[in-house]
Amino acid sequence: MAYETLTEKTAGEYARAKANIFSKNSELECKEIGDGNLNLVFRVKEKTPGGKSVIIKQSMPHARIDKSIIAPLERADIESEMLVLYNQITPNLSPKIYFYDKEEYAIIMEDLSAYIVLRKGLIRGNLYPHLAEHMGEFLARSLFFTSDLGLDPLKKKAMQKKFINPDLCKITEDLVFSNPYFDASNNKIDPEIRTRAERNWVDDELKSAVAVLKEKFMTQGQALIHGDLHTGSVFVTADSTKIFDPEFAFFGPMGFDIGAILGNVILNYLSQEWHLKNSDNKKAYQRYLLDTFRGIWMIFSHRFRELWNSSVTTPMESNPVYRENYMKRLFSDSIGYAGCKMARRIVGLAQVEDIRSIPDAEVRAKVQIAALDISREFIIQRDKYYSIEDVIGTVQNYPL
Amino acid sequence: MAYETLTEKTAGEYARAKANIFSKNSELECKEIGDGNLNLVFRVKEKTPGGKSVIIKQSMPHARIDKSIIAPLERADIESEMLVLYNQITPNLSPKIYFYDKEEYAIIMEDLSAYIVLRKGLIRGNLYPHLAEHMGEFLARSLFFTSDLGLDPLKKKAMQKKFINPDLCKITEDLVFSNPYFDASNNKIDPEIRTRAERNWVDDELKSAVAVLKEKFMTQGQALIHGDLHTGSVFVTADSTKIFDPEFAFFGPMGFDIGAILGNVILNYLSQEWHLKNSDNKKAYQRYLLDTFRGIWMIFSHRFRELWNSSVTTPMESNPVYRENYMKRLFSDSIGYAGCKMARRIVGLAQVEDIRSIPDAEVRAKVQIAALDISREFIIQRDKYYSIEDVIGTVQNYPL
Repeated sequence: MAYETLTEKTAGEYARAKANIFSKNSELECKEIGDGNLNLVFRVKEKTPGGKSVIIKQSMPHARIDKSIIAPLERADIESEMLVLYNQITPNLSPKIYFYDKEEYAIIMEDLSAYIVLRKGLIRGNLYPHLAEHMGEFLARSLFFTSDLGLDPLKKKAMQKKFINPDLCKITEDLVFSNPYFDASNNKIDPEIRTRAERNWVDDELKSAVAVLKEKFMTQGQALIHGDLHTGSVFVTADSTKIFDPEFAFFGPMGFDIGAILGNVILNYLSQEWHLKNSDNKKAYQRYLLDTFRGIWMIFSHRFRELWNSSVTTPMESNPVYRENYMKRLFSDSIGYAGCKMARRIVGLAQVEDIRSIPDAEVRAKVQIAALDISREFIIQRDKYYSIEDVIGTVQNYPL
Repeated sequence: MAYETLTEKTAGEYARAKANIFSKNSELECKEIGDGNLNLVFRVKEKTPGGKSVIIKQSMPHARIDKSIIAPLERADIESEMLVLYNQITPNLSPKIYFYDKEEYAIIMEDLSAYIVLRKGLIRGNLYPHLAEHMGEFLARSLFFTSDLGLDPLKKKAMQKKFINPDLCKITEDLVFSNPYFDASNNKIDPEIRTRAERNWVDDELKSAVAVLKEKFMTQGQALIHGDLHTGSVFVTADSTKIFDPEFAFFGPMGFDIGAILGNVILNYLSQEWHLKNSDNKKAYQRYLLDTFRGIWMIFSHRFRELWNSSVTTPMESNPVYRENYMKRLFSDSIGYAGCKMARRIVGLAQVEDIRSIPDAEVRAKVQIAALDISREFIIQRDKYYSIEDVIGTVQNYPL
């Protein structure tokens, strides 16, 4: 069957036919709920009270607003195969996949209407007491079991072949690791921070350190990483956490995933200077965010070491001296990438609601400059940090 | 056409039909000259004086001596595509390829009968005055033009997919980076050096450093490397150098190729304690070998920087601070891998004629222990060397 975009009229019966979820005679309602630019998203729901529902996500070959922007449909293969893999190795931490249609580039998956996107939850000042534990667990399992430590090296190389993802890697190479460090035409720099932003463009120490992290992103096939694990790629409720949108996945450095979530937590921390500015709760919420930041690393590294100790038996890799050397490098990478992910959200094309939604230009500039300064410290000092407390010190000691 | 092994009877007309080399009516003679275990090698020659000749190399699906040892025929794809690539990017430094037959897994290439294998030439004490220049040039061009520096990153990733080479990588992972560091059943350890060899098995500092280099070998897709660039993979005459046998090629760390040739030059240097023991020429020849060792790195790094300066214009990578950081890491990697390549030839399965041909057990043991000691220095100290002179110092100061 040739590729054809679904509509609100066709998506319901499509879901009934493909996924074994709905009863045969139930009446279905269907709504297109996507707000993205490259995908159609439908919710299909049985009309009966307590009826079941699913989400259909279908990739489009071009942008919704501009058909001249082409996006390779194959990204849907990567995304769906990643979600299937996450269903296996990180159970309950990603949406359940019911069906994947390779011809239609459509995935039928669990409806997460009860969840909100983590970024929005944090902007609202919500507490997610299990977030650090879930993210730490997700990172440890997804990274360990797709690395040479937790996967047979022959199988890993076969998977690596399948997950080569040049076009989406290029987006990251440009938007995260290049454009913020020169006068790129698609940078978005508020006039209040222009001078500070331009300082990075002549900062050879910073630029060289970013180039090293870029090189690592482009060459180090350490594990099958999500590739875009910011707070907008996580759905949450008070008790549950689901990681989604892994279309940027490829074999890259583990620290890029860990740093993505860590850096975005710090951006939210800084943005609370505005969002909770009149609240008694500000300090406590920022403390919660730093606890989450610490917890993600602590739980990740604890679980990762547990997996290592319980399952690595090969002569070279079971050596604890090597394991600790590995963990230290992983830590440095994670902090460096956290820095890179912060800076790109301040001066690059794709910014974040946490900070963009601050209407007061002066407060916004203060927060943006703090993000750039802390980002620089993370990137330059990454090898010199020996504990997550040192990193938190850099954030806490920053004069906001 | 189904795969069929060639014979002395069929190879001649096969070559005439496939490669546009021989005249239509010339009489051909053909001889099987392979001494390897996994390939058939034929020389086909016109009988007329001054007649042309070619080599046919055909891969076999199993070992010649033991049909139960299976070798994937696809290695011939990798080898021939690499040689075609070398013909393009390192002209005159590899045998010319006339034809590659994907069905027969056969390559028809330039006859290099006038050449000898570099390892044998060095054992004989021959001087190759252009060797350092040719190897430096080969390394610079082959590595630069297959890295993200000299190749479009999108194209590089497409090539990387093609050159994923799990089975042959596994051989290296085991024989170079694992087995020498524990009591592996296929190690070959002379009784005279058993105590010294066993010392490495409990040397956690050394084993951890090797594990880091192993990890880099398994994960860092820096450039399309030859993968087995010892002195047995190079043909030489007094004026000419040809690199061959790239069947281990994959996207790996550049330093692995550089270190392979450097480490094998040092093994030959040490072996001259025997081969030239009664010759006035010993010191001079060892000096020539260290000059070659130095020259390979100096010319490689000079040419690599030249290519960088003349062709890298991207904002992040054209930064000279980054370039020098890159060159320093490349240097450390190369010395570390040189160390790994030395040790595996002393205690591992595949040893080298330079040392194995020393009949005197006492001298051989002295040379072997020197190789293990220097190898350890190379591996442990690799980040602390700042110039090739420092590395040469380690070799020269070793009390032989």
